[in-house]
Amino acid sequence: MSIYIDPAVALSLRGYEMPERLGFGTAMAPVMFRAVCQDGCWSNGELIPYEPLSVDPAAKVLHYAQSCFEGMKAYRTGEGIALFRPEKNAERMAYSAKRLCMPPVPESLFLDGVRTVAAYCANLVPGNSGESLYLRPFLIGTQADLTVSASTSYEFYVIASPSEAYHSGNMRLWVEREDARAAVGGTGDAKVGGNYAGSLLSIGRLKERGYDQSLWLNPADRSSVDELSGMNFFAVIDGALHTPALNGSILEGITRFSLIDLARNLGYKVVEGTIHIDELLGQVASGTCTEAFACGTAAIISPISVIGDDGGSYKLSQVPGPVAQHLRQALLDIQEGRVEDHFNWMLSVETVEV
Amino acid sequence: MSIYIDPAVALSLRGYEMPERLGFGTAMAPVMFRAVCQDGCWSNGELIPYEPLSVDPAAKVLHYAQSCFEGMKAYRTGEGIALFRPEKNAERMAYSAKRLCMPPVPESLFLDGVRTVAAYCANLVPGNSGESLYLRPFLIGTQADLTVSASTSYEFYVIASPSEAYHSGNMRLWVEREDARAAVGGTGDAKVGGNYAGSLLSIGRLKERGYDQSLWLNPADRSSVDELSGMNFFAVIDGALHTPALNGSILEGITRFSLIDLARNLGYKVVEGTIHIDELLGQVASGTCTEAFACGTAAIISPISVIGDDGGSYKLSQVPGPVAQHLRQALLDIQEGRVEDHFNWMLSVETVEV
Ligand SMILES: Cc1ncc(COP(=O)(O)O)c(C=O)c1O
Ligand SMILES: Cc1ncc(COP(=O)(O)O)c(C=O)c1O
Repeated sequence: MSIYIDPAVALSLRGYEMPERLGFGTAMAPVMFRAVCQDGCWSNGELIPYEPLSVDPAAKVLHYAQSCFEGMKAYRTGEGIALFRPEKNAERMAYSAKRLCMPPVPESLFLDGVRTVAAYCANLVPGNSGESLYLRPFLIGTQADLTVSASTSYEFYVIASPSEAYHSGNMRLWVEREDARAAVGGTGDAKVGGNYAGSLLSIGRLKERGYDQSLWLNPADRSSVDELSGMNFFAVIDGALHTPALNGSILEGITRFSLIDLARNLGYKVVEGTIHIDELLGQVASGTCTEAFACGTAAIISPISVIGDDGGSYKLSQVPGPVAQHLRQALLDIQEGRVEDHFNWMLSVETVEV
Repeated sequence: MSIYIDPAVALSLRGYEMPERLGFGTAMAPVMFRAVCQDGCWSNGELIPYEPLSVDPAAKVLHYAQSCFEGMKAYRTGEGIALFRPEKNAERMAYSAKRLCMPPVPESLFLDGVRTVAAYCANLVPGNSGESLYLRPFLIGTQADLTVSASTSYEFYVIASPSEAYHSGNMRLWVEREDARAAVGGTGDAKVGGNYAGSLLSIGRLKERGYDQSLWLNPADRSSVDELSGMNFFAVIDGALHTPALNGSILEGITRFSLIDLARNLGYKVVEGTIHIDELLGQVASGTCTEAFACGTAAIISPISVIGDDGGSYKLSQVPGPVAQHLRQALLDIQEGRVEDHFNWMLSVETVEV
């Protein structure tokens, strides 16, 4: 499909100044990709200046949260700009869309979108290790109609933000025993807005207690670990790498399954299974669990220093631990092009000068 | 607080033509109420022409579903226009807002909003019994920032739509045993977008089977009745009126608690308790359960004709049943001003001619 490039894009890009302090997801790139879908038919994509969307006050996205999104990054490599497994994001977004009765964005259109934004924003990809251009594809239901039903019209966007890693320091988790981020038979395994809205209250509560992130438990048993609000969970127990097995309420992180492959390839034993929270806390206390970390596109690998619970606060002995450091470096070495890409994970992007 | 009336409002209203066929929530009134909140401070409200909202592509509402809403109606009574217990909607919206870490809309601002829209749209309130001007107050997080955190800025709107009742015919329910609309410790008792997005797939599935609405089960036990996607559930069993007790995953309908009072006042026995789905289906089959209906602002009281389940399809013997008909009439008589308002439920609105 041919992509329309708005002539105003060049001006927007030339006038752009990189922010002094990057932060995460706050400074937006001055261009965005857009395509619309009416009654199941997709338009061609277009690259246009970043500008406010015109949304009908009765649009489904505003009332019934009919929206899903992805999070991915364009990395500066030795040779240029590259994306990490973008077809996996396309696939997951199609899954999320279907969960909310939205038309999946065709893979080719999705890839056009992220590639075009990365290509034109090549100069906005920061160069320090751990920094990148964060890309945010999203799909919203735009039909103006207040009945609880799927929209007949949709808009797909890719916006971008030059960013640091989401969590740079060590993270303090709090075991969330009251609230749930997703229901059994709910939307936990899809990347949809409602999962995140529901988690804000928990995050607010634990910040007051001096913690950074909720550790969500499985909604079926309320006693095993699922994940964090925007990252998957790993622990090193007796030298092996453990992570919760997919169960319908966990979002299947692309970093998660890539790390599983990478770790096995590096000789680690990896166990996908059930992690009972009380057992885990006992293992932290006894020193059997030496380290824990969270992973995700935004956070890369962030070491966990403490897990707090009503019964007390459990300190990990190794922060950051050797396994987390080893894996983080190995992953970033691939993403930032310092080693050969044996897994064939990177898609290089031909950049466009404006 | 003083309300600013945009001079363009008069022109918008004078040029408005009522749609030939009303439907529900599809034809929007040409004006809307707006107020904004920045860092916890609310602006004055304003009445402006209905127009697309300008929403930043990175706004929290689009990505993390930080939005909540209300549904209420302005009724044409003998004497003019009136609202039904609007302070209850204000209260529930404040509850929903807090669940998603949003600043509650102050009650006075909320009431200003719905009253002003009703006052200026008096000519748009249709006059047949069961018809009304549906009012949709909603609150959205507008800050442009991709971190999973509460917005620092919000917009509150009241839009309106001249409407028929949401479901006019008899409803065919399907027992939803796979999906859940809300989690234990989730957002089921708040009126927030994510609950509705997650229910679309179930609704789509059952429509293919010839049913109208999902009957949601309680997420904790997966075996007792909670409610419908936008209505509460009642059944007449052994002559008494039964409805599920509030349990944290049911939205507390204003129609629901008003009907409980009204029914008791009319001499019915009302039981709020647990309704086991298998027991209920047995009671329908044996004829002990003679009728069932759903209630809500949009649907008023809608009789249920059939409850379908994997094991078969259970027909209610009385459709519409005498209790549903009696209560529907008694409620509408109050709302449409045909009887004295002993409960003091109605708030009359001083209309404005433009
Ligand atoms: C709930 C949740 N879990 C896990 C992840 C990690 O997924 P990925 O590694 O694909 O970024 C994310 C973020 O994307 C998330 O939002
Ligand atoms: C999930 C849900 N349950 C019940 C109701 C009924 O509530 P009310 O009677 O206040 O309209 C609604 C609609 O408002 C709803 O969305």
